[in-house]
Amino acid sequence: MATERPRIGADKLTDFAIRVLRKVGVPEEDAQITARMLVASDLRGMDSHGVAHLVPFYVSGIKEGQINAKPRMKVFSQAPSTATMDGDRGLGFVIGYRAMMEAMHRAEKTGAGFIAVRTSTHFGAGAYYAMMALERNMIGMAMTNTGTGMVVPGSTKPAGGTNPLAVAAPAGKKAPFVLDMATSVVADSKLEVARREGTSIPEGWAIDKEGKPITDPTKRVHGEGGLLPLGGTPTFGSYKGFGLGVLVDILCGVLSGSCAGILKGAPISIDHFFGALRIDSFLPVENFKKSMDEMIEAFEALPTLPGVKKIYVAGGHGAEIEKDRKANGIPLNAKVIEELQELAKELDIKYDL
Amino acid sequence: MATERPRIGADKLTDFAIRVLRKVGVPEEDAQITARMLVASDLRGMDSHGVAHLVPFYVSGIKEGQINAKPRMKVFSQAPSTATMDGDRGLGFVIGYRAMMEAMHRAEKTGAGFIAVRTSTHFGAGAYYAMMALERNMIGMAMTNTGTGMVVPGSTKPAGGTNPLAVAAPAGKKAPFVLDMATSVVADSKLEVARREGTSIPEGWAIDKEGKPITDPTKRVHGEGGLLPLGGTPTFGSYKGFGLGVLVDILCGVLSGSCAGILKGAPISIDHFFGALRIDSFLPVENFKKSMDEMIEAFEALPTLPGVKKIYVAGGHGAEIEKDRKANGIPLNAKVIEELQELAKELDIKYDL
Repeated sequence: MATERPRIGADKLTDFAIRVLRKVGVPEEDAQITARMLVASDLRGMDSHGVAHLVPFYVSGIKEGQINAKPRMKVFSQAPSTATMDGDRGLGFVIGYRAMMEAMHRAEKTGAGFIAVRTSTHFGAGAYYAMMALERNMIGMAMTNTGTGMVVPGSTKPAGGTNPLAVAAPAGKKAPFVLDMATSVVADSKLEVARREGTSIPEGWAIDKEGKPITDPTKRVHGEGGLLPLGGTPTFGSYKGFGLGVLVDILCGVLSGSCAGILKGAPISIDHFFGALRIDSFLPVENFKKSMDEMIEAFEALPTLPGVKKIYVAGGHGAEIEKDRKANGIPLNAKVIEELQELAKELDIKYDL
Repeated sequence: MATERPRIGADKLTDFAIRVLRKVGVPEEDAQITARMLVASDLRGMDSHGVAHLVPFYVSGIKEGQINAKPRMKVFSQAPSTATMDGDRGLGFVIGYRAMMEAMHRAEKTGAGFIAVRTSTHFGAGAYYAMMALERNMIGMAMTNTGTGMVVPGSTKPAGGTNPLAVAAPAGKKAPFVLDMATSVVADSKLEVARREGTSIPEGWAIDKEGKPITDPTKRVHGEGGLLPLGGTPTFGSYKGFGLGVLVDILCGVLSGSCAGILKGAPISIDHFFGALRIDSFLPVENFKKSMDEMIEAFEALPTLPGVKKIYVAGGHGAEIEKDRKANGIPLNAKVIEELQELAKELDIKYDL
């Protein structure tokens, strides 16, 4: 799959994204932060959260005024380890980056740092923020609420968010642990892909307004039916997926002083939650990393089912993709390349990918 | 179902459990802590984690020497918000209680408190510790690793733990949010119940050593096959359930200086992780509670599927059970009553339930 697409170097792609963002009014440093994070998602194989979103999400958002290119963010703090932040509807990447820095700054001092953020916008993949903690020998976490696309167990109304959570923890010689998951069975992006490619989806990902499973992704109508919570049905634990989604919204929407997704009107603002734990405030970092390596190696050494090549602990697969893409470039979708070419023309910047 | 069983008052049951624990050598204060927590589980409807476990888990554990009735716990701290603790194989309840108090003490000062605990034993239901935060206007969390009873996606080996996590957050007039979930599709106790009652289990809870689904709970053989992670299969997100289980073990086993469950030999020690966030270090408590009420009410007001009486947010159902059982007593299983009667005879204490 990947080999059929043209491969583009990460540096070139970052540079292009910076010039785009600069041109639509994003300050230099913020453009750099955002571009680096978009390309980092592409490098890890999270294509749906990378440069593919540059035009439809961020450039459009800035042009149409939902995203404030020059926000005045504010931090409110009453205690050494915690704070809330108002993002002033800036780019979610920039707000998320600064909030995560703030969380780590507090963890540096006290061992733990937590920031709840209100009035932000789409921040891309949560994994990036969680992973910012890795080189500082911290455990990082990032969460965000979303629109209401997940049905609530017992109802057919998509009144819950797919509210993803991400956690990263460093290892020694093994790839770091990186868990980044929507609290629904699958993220919305999987239905987008199926719609684009004209394929069906497995029974058990989503239901229609009567509560019946849909396999045709185009049958999903806005506001009626939606994605199922992780677990699928109550028999298989959908109240757990729903519960995790509500938990994320409590930390993001409620604790930040905004509100839960179910109460928001359009256009919705988005809220986040970031955290950092300093490992050496618990035990020596070398001990932690050695113990992580031993755990990951033990999982990888398990006997596999027929047809399974390798057992992955969260983050292991992303690390393999990243290694390949750093060496050989990022395979971009033809439709995305087309969009970027048009964008370059429209903004009168050089297209050199 | 519940009405067929004799109902026993919570105070009587607590008093009985205290006398039992005292008699097997548990110091007075520790006996009180443990008994209160066991009965609190029964009150919330978590029957599998209440007094039913007194004989087979805790009294036996103390008698056989796996549980140390008079532990010397130690706290090691390098930072204001965090610490590790060694439980010296004491009763998990006592260790968990003290660790949660320590976490809240730190949150009182800095806004956030986190304690990783090693060398503990079974601590009952995580919900209790998380809920200790409620009356202090904090968000509480508690996690524990377990034995290896959950199969790893891609393998048939039960090398992962069902590693549960619990989080509680206060509301205003609504019941508090209390999420307490194993990271497997179902907790092991559901299979125990099915075995005891001779019923079958749904296809999708557990697999045998060939990876085939089992519906006969007695077909589950120790060390081969096991419970499936939340999500069930990779198509429906089992890597998420597995990832959450590994996350819990990183925070409990790795961060505490113990090790992940997969690396432990028998008899295993158990590790925990506790956390507290002080709400008023983020926003005024009244605002938080009002916002929680609004969220919960909005979920409860959703239209329901045919046959569904009420939509519950995590904790809502437990609160209803608690209200009934506080007023009308706790319905105890006949087998449990028999065990307790025998125990009273054996220990030469008065049976008055």
